[in-house]
Amino acid sequence: MAKPTPLSGFPEFLPAQRYVETTVLDTLATVFELHGFANIETRAVEPMDQLLRKGDTSKEVYVLRRLQEEDGGKDKGLGLHFDLTVPFARYVLENAGKLEFPFRRYQIQKVWRGERPQDGRYREFAQADIDIVGAGELPVHHDLEIARVMLDALGRIAHPDVLGLPGFRLQVNNRKLIQGFYAGLGIDDLDETMRLIDKLDKLPADAVRTQLVESGLSEEQADRCLELATICTPDTSFVDKVRGLGVEHPLLDEGLAELADVVAGCAALVTDRVRIEADLKIARGLDYYTGTVFETRLDGHESLGSICSGGRYDSLASDGRTTYPGVGISLGVSRLLVPLLNRGELVADRSVPSVVLVALTDEAGRADSDTLATQLRSSGVPCEVAPSPQKFGKQIRYAERRGIPYVLFSTEDGPQIKDIRSGEQVAVDPATWTPPPADLKPRITVSTSTTNQMETEK
Amino acid sequence: MAKPTPLSGFPEFLPAQRYVETTVLDTLATVFELHGFANIETRAVEPMDQLLRKGDTSKEVYVLRRLQEEDGGKDKGLGLHFDLTVPFARYVLENAGKLEFPFRRYQIQKVWRGERPQDGRYREFAQADIDIVGAGELPVHHDLEIARVMLDALGRIAHPDVLGLPGFRLQVNNRKLIQGFYAGLGIDDLDETMRLIDKLDKLPADAVRTQLVESGLSEEQADRCLELATICTPDTSFVDKVRGLGVEHPLLDEGLAELADVVAGCAALVTDRVRIEADLKIARGLDYYTGTVFETRLDGHESLGSICSGGRYDSLASDGRTTYPGVGISLGVSRLLVPLLNRGELVADRSVPSVVLVALTDEAGRADSDTLATQLRSSGVPCEVAPSPQKFGKQIRYAERRGIPYVLFSTEDGPQIKDIRSGEQVAVDPATWTPPPADLKPRITVSTSTTNQMETEK
Repeated sequence: MAKPTPLSGFPEFLPAQRYVETTVLDTLATVFELHGFANIETRAVEPMDQLLRKGDTSKEVYVLRRLQEEDGGKDKGLGLHFDLTVPFARYVLENAGKLEFPFRRYQIQKVWRGERPQDGRYREFAQADIDIVGAGELPVHHDLEIARVMLDALGRIAHPDVLGLPGFRLQVNNRKLIQGFYAGLGIDDLDETMRLIDKLDKLPADAVRTQLVESGLSEEQADRCLELATICTPDTSFVDKVRGLGVEHPLLDEGLAELADVVAGCAALVTDRVRIEADLKIARGLDYYTGTVFETRLDGHESLGSICSGGRYDSLASDGRTTYPGVGISLGVSRLLVPLLNRGELVADRSVPSVVLVALTDEAGRADSDTLATQLRSSGVPCEVAPSPQKFGKQIRYAERRGIPYVLFSTEDGPQIKDIRSGEQVAVDPATWTPPPADLKPRITVSTSTTNQMETEK
Repeated sequence: MAKPTPLSGFPEFLPAQRYVETTVLDTLATVFELHGFANIETRAVEPMDQLLRKGDTSKEVYVLRRLQEEDGGKDKGLGLHFDLTVPFARYVLENAGKLEFPFRRYQIQKVWRGERPQDGRYREFAQADIDIVGAGELPVHHDLEIARVMLDALGRIAHPDVLGLPGFRLQVNNRKLIQGFYAGLGIDDLDETMRLIDKLDKLPADAVRTQLVESGLSEEQADRCLELATICTPDTSFVDKVRGLGVEHPLLDEGLAELADVVAGCAALVTDRVRIEADLKIARGLDYYTGTVFETRLDGHESLGSICSGGRYDSLASDGRTTYPGVGISLGVSRLLVPLLNRGELVADRSVPSVVLVALTDEAGRADSDTLATQLRSSGVPCEVAPSPQKFGKQIRYAERRGIPYVLFSTEDGPQIKDIRSGEQVAVDPATWTPPPADLKPRITVSTSTTNQMETEK
């Protein structure tokens, strides 16, 4: 077999890179559970008619076929899920009688999209979603809850004890606010206006203004819409700024109140690593949100786009009798990590979990070395035994190449452990010895270039 | 949307069931890492030519196609992996220059097979694989290492602190032993004989004997093969029993020595929950093993078949210049858990991670309840705030329905916590209170029927 080459759009990690990813996933799971979110997984496939309900994603679906299947086989209608929202809505309906509402769940899984792989777009990628769904109703305080849980999670990921990333900025807006404002201006096609304003991320304001006018808005209406979109505050001061634009509408009032509640309720969670802001240009394009909307930027890495997005759906799912409103947010784990890992900006210093290499004097001593290893493991110290009784210098280099910090030797005076970084060697009892806490797991470091970049942009 | 129905062959869990699964997966990961195994994940798809290299599995592969793809699109050659060995072999070749050998990895992922769903066969299921792979050579002591690691892992899963399962029996054999024995008997078609002996699991010995004779063996040869297959010992006493059959061959000697090393080396790990036995009828059918082979039974649940299988490949992968021998074993996580969970024989007593429900006096007090919840979380106590300020009796029933054991109330005398099982209520400081360790996580119980069944069969 010739050496295989990577498949474009299907990122894979080396062991040390994967360690960084599992650290992020474990941190997320811990925080989500602290907030009472239960984990579920859904199958990778959904019926095609479910996947195609939102017309505009249809081109991205991977359809499945069994190799030996005859035409018209009943598996023909299955495709790989392209997000975790469609499967979750189906899961809620399927299990509604067995779930307790409001139902909080987190779900961390791969999803697949047959997109052209480019610019941080992948064909297979991992997402971490949290959602709260109600049966019939879901009070708006759950929008704040979702924001708080994700801020807590992002804050822990960014913390120097985990990744030490520069900082996350959670941007919040509210569809009712936008739509109420447009309606108060007398604009008819609210969706089209919102779609054009959403282009401010990619186009200059002048170009968007031209398109707004072309879509039928007056110059006055277009200018007001653009003014609204420039409002961005780290606190509830956006309310007065919007009021200052002189537009009035009941839906605008409702949106302002909801957004003010979310921003004010998150104030206590703001640190130098996570911030929240009311950013009134955030609209989430064509997605079917009906209230709060979220996007998130990583400081110094704005080119990654929004790495964590979501919002409120008044109807996440419905079975005709009951409607299930939901609010959620989805962290693009691959979108965040793949570029940083591939560029070497995030690095773990060990390719194996082992903290200790147990040296081997000769092959006859392997059982003794195994016993020492078992003793280390009994106190929770990951370790491995040298594969062959090479000269000790070679065994030490074996450890060095993997980033293993300690080597345990059997000596005439009993077991001794050497820190191969300092060269210090001391007698130990393998049944009770533990390393300093910082050595127990691989160390993750952020490259200086990333940190500097961040400092410059601050 | 009408109520969706489950897809046959694609098992999904309710939150409390999923908790049991994640507990097993976390336990496996912990043990594997204690033994120095690094985690990796491979993409879900492989090129079809890789997936079809082993002819007999071709019928089970799910082929992918992008919905909007023109005929002859280049994605056409992709299918979902049906195990974790083919992707791992490809990963080793692709990254050989960046990996350190011997390379120990564990991999826990879903795999897909388009099989007819029946009798514990699924179309999507989770596997947990450990493998050790060498570049050029891999000493046989790694076969023992794989057995020890999996025994350690199974022992922890079966332990009452985790699942409390009856017990696992790791059955080991060696292809060299079987093939050397057959060769020593003068049998020509070793593979066919092995394939027929492998049917002893499903057919009575008489029927297998008939088929052996029909395949060209003499009655004497057939009897000896069946005698070999009846040998099953919990220690190395199988060696003398095989010797007693009077067959001699150098390959037989090699196989006996290798198998004796594995069985003897595992003796220290045997407990009442995990046992090892040399079972000379285990052959692993058509798989391409070249030495040690493993199967595993769960006591009292023999109908599940082997829930953990593997062995030694002299050539896991090869790029023409270097051959990569490997030894590994794969635990069928879904095969083990889906039947036990679906029959209700394994149950978790909580559908949410929350240990505490923070009660709510009125909606105006929500921020105060949020603050109490934040204090609890700061000491690692998962909790949630009541969704609405119902009467306290209703809030307690909300907790009961989810299995949440404690409710925290704000009273005039400060915060008080009620154990809703005993009714006991005491004043606490939410910033320092932690529950008894046994309450911190949901409790998993094995149903009495399972335990009784096990006791009877012991």
